[in-house]
Amino acid sequence: MNALQTLLSKIEAPDVAAMKAAQARQDTLTKPPGSLGRLERLSLQIAGITGSARPHLHHKVITTMAGDHGVVAEGVSAFPQEVTPQMVLNFLHGGAAINVLARHVGARVVVVDMGVAAELPPHAALVNKKVGRGTANIARGPAMTREQALQSLLNGAAVVEAEIERGLDILGTGDMGIGNTTPSAAIAAAVTGRAPAQIVGRGTGVDDLGLARKVAAVEQALAVNRPDPHDGLDVLAKVGGFEIGGLAGAMLAAAAHRKPVVIDGFISGAAALIAVTLAPSLRPYLIAAHRSQEKGHRIMLEWLGLEPVLDLDLRLGEGTGAALAIGVCEAACKVLDEMATFAEAGVAGRLD
Amino acid sequence: MNALQTLLSKIEAPDVAAMKAAQARQDTLTKPPGSLGRLERLSLQIAGITGSARPHLHHKVITTMAGDHGVVAEGVSAFPQEVTPQMVLNFLHGGAAINVLARHVGARVVVVDMGVAAELPPHAALVNKKVGRGTANIARGPAMTREQALQSLLNGAAVVEAEIERGLDILGTGDMGIGNTTPSAAIAAAVTGRAPAQIVGRGTGVDDLGLARKVAAVEQALAVNRPDPHDGLDVLAKVGGFEIGGLAGAMLAAAAHRKPVVIDGFISGAAALIAVTLAPSLRPYLIAAHRSQEKGHRIMLEWLGLEPVLDLDLRLGEGTGAALAIGVCEAACKVLDEMATFAEAGVAGRLD
Repeated sequence: MNALQTLLSKIEAPDVAAMKAAQARQDTLTKPPGSLGRLERLSLQIAGITGSARPHLHHKVITTMAGDHGVVAEGVSAFPQEVTPQMVLNFLHGGAAINVLARHVGARVVVVDMGVAAELPPHAALVNKKVGRGTANIARGPAMTREQALQSLLNGAAVVEAEIERGLDILGTGDMGIGNTTPSAAIAAAVTGRAPAQIVGRGTGVDDLGLARKVAAVEQALAVNRPDPHDGLDVLAKVGGFEIGGLAGAMLAAAAHRKPVVIDGFISGAAALIAVTLAPSLRPYLIAAHRSQEKGHRIMLEWLGLEPVLDLDLRLGEGTGAALAIGVCEAACKVLDEMATFAEAGVAGRLD
Repeated sequence: MNALQTLLSKIEAPDVAAMKAAQARQDTLTKPPGSLGRLERLSLQIAGITGSARPHLHHKVITTMAGDHGVVAEGVSAFPQEVTPQMVLNFLHGGAAINVLARHVGARVVVVDMGVAAELPPHAALVNKKVGRGTANIARGPAMTREQALQSLLNGAAVVEAEIERGLDILGTGDMGIGNTTPSAAIAAAVTGRAPAQIVGRGTGVDDLGLARKVAAVEQALAVNRPDPHDGLDVLAKVGGFEIGGLAGAMLAAAAHRKPVVIDGFISGAAALIAVTLAPSLRPYLIAAHRSQEKGHRIMLEWLGLEPVLDLDLRLGEGTGAALAIGVCEAACKVLDEMATFAEAGVAGRLD
């Protein structure tokens, strides 16, 4: 537990002075005060996170973490488990949606094997942080041991630590893992206390029978495992996943280094629930990329107290929403940094 | 009227075959069908508009059109009229929000003087399409003559025709004009039949008294001028503005050349009401960039039948929302064009 406690203790409060300086500059820029709405608020949040009154987001990284889930045995996914490693290869070859959208916003995708059930061929761009070959079936017992849960957090943190050394300015989180909306729903039910039926959605697109199986699997997972909602590590071990733990660790490490974290959709939301349960001080570092089509995502965002940047009916995962929202965050910082002031441009102010 | 009728008659229905081909391709890409939500729908819309099953948006242009408004005499704006030409200079020097956001998405800003009250110094990047030195006060009589209304439409169309020759792939519309939320509200009230009090908002930030003056000015404008809601040219002449007419003309010209049009906020919305009244066939070419903070914008979007891409509490105008939404449109087209198919990537399909 020592390494984790050290990590959690490093997360400081946002820099209020930097936020105030950013607000003061916003008020001098050639636009009616507040007229850029969310862009202005994002710029202030990122100023507070980074401690810079004019933050720059040059190095944008999306960590897409993959893992498999024993709960697929309950028939909770519309796709077969072999799609997880197949999609990891697709990420490595640049053909997936996350590759296209990351290129679009100038972000780098870091593909991480946190716990894919298959052995993946070595690839220069694949980060191997495998904790196990898929989790156990949460409907029958714990997903992993407490040691594995800790390891997945630390492995995820290590991925971000390595990127920080290469100059990361903003982190986006993404996931791949057939079946992973089921443990994510279980985490959300455990942490928020809401009923599984209110949270479980169709994931990649199960039919009504599949949806009923998912609800039953989550109910069973909670009944069998009884996760302690106040102990993030316990929730992760009992009903989580390796990539979910990795993403939670990545969020904590980014915040410990004062970097903003753009969380993607439902799976990243579950990881954020774990991470915020472990360290409530993480919350101001989080930016919710979008409101997912996946039913329980609203409940997660409500619990996290986050207003999503985008609402584009996405439900793909991989970090696709995070990529687009990182583009908006960068735009927000550029507005703060690059716009002319009323004085510089010789523009008259308000009449009153 | 001949030139206008020619323009209107050129707007054809979207290409259904291209849309179907785009949909067929979307269904083969490595993601659950429909999981990229609005991005997928945008790609289909743009396929239909352009007649290409894999459209590319290389050349992105935002026309920011400026004009002044006699109705400022009624005390309807928080800023003095000289801000209009001052902001035009700011656009030309690259210091305004639209410059920052257009650079961010790789779009070019085309700054157009449609009817600024001051004489602007010549500038290589300023397009002079001045129809008059500001409109007359709509609370006392018509904004302009019917001939001027026609001229403003044709001048706006000519700006886009010139850009089409330089290779425009997508048009964003933006505005600058102190006082221009007042004629825009009057247009919305005239076309939709809703009461001015339901539509008039705070614009750049008037206080309660200013807001009451704006409502009164719009009510008076409608009572004095009695615009015919079925005659777009009449509405434009009686309660419109030169930049509003220019934007309406720009939209019509883009559609006549099968180019998608991303309309910004409240002022571009008013221009779209005029343009769609003139040519209902324009509607499928329009993409609403965002939902503005300005109160009546929802009413405009409802009438236009458009769902905004973004909802970021913006109310600046200039084309700032359009710039960000153009970035999303480009992302949507890249997804359609660049993603690998299940067959190409060797990824298994659904279980059922």
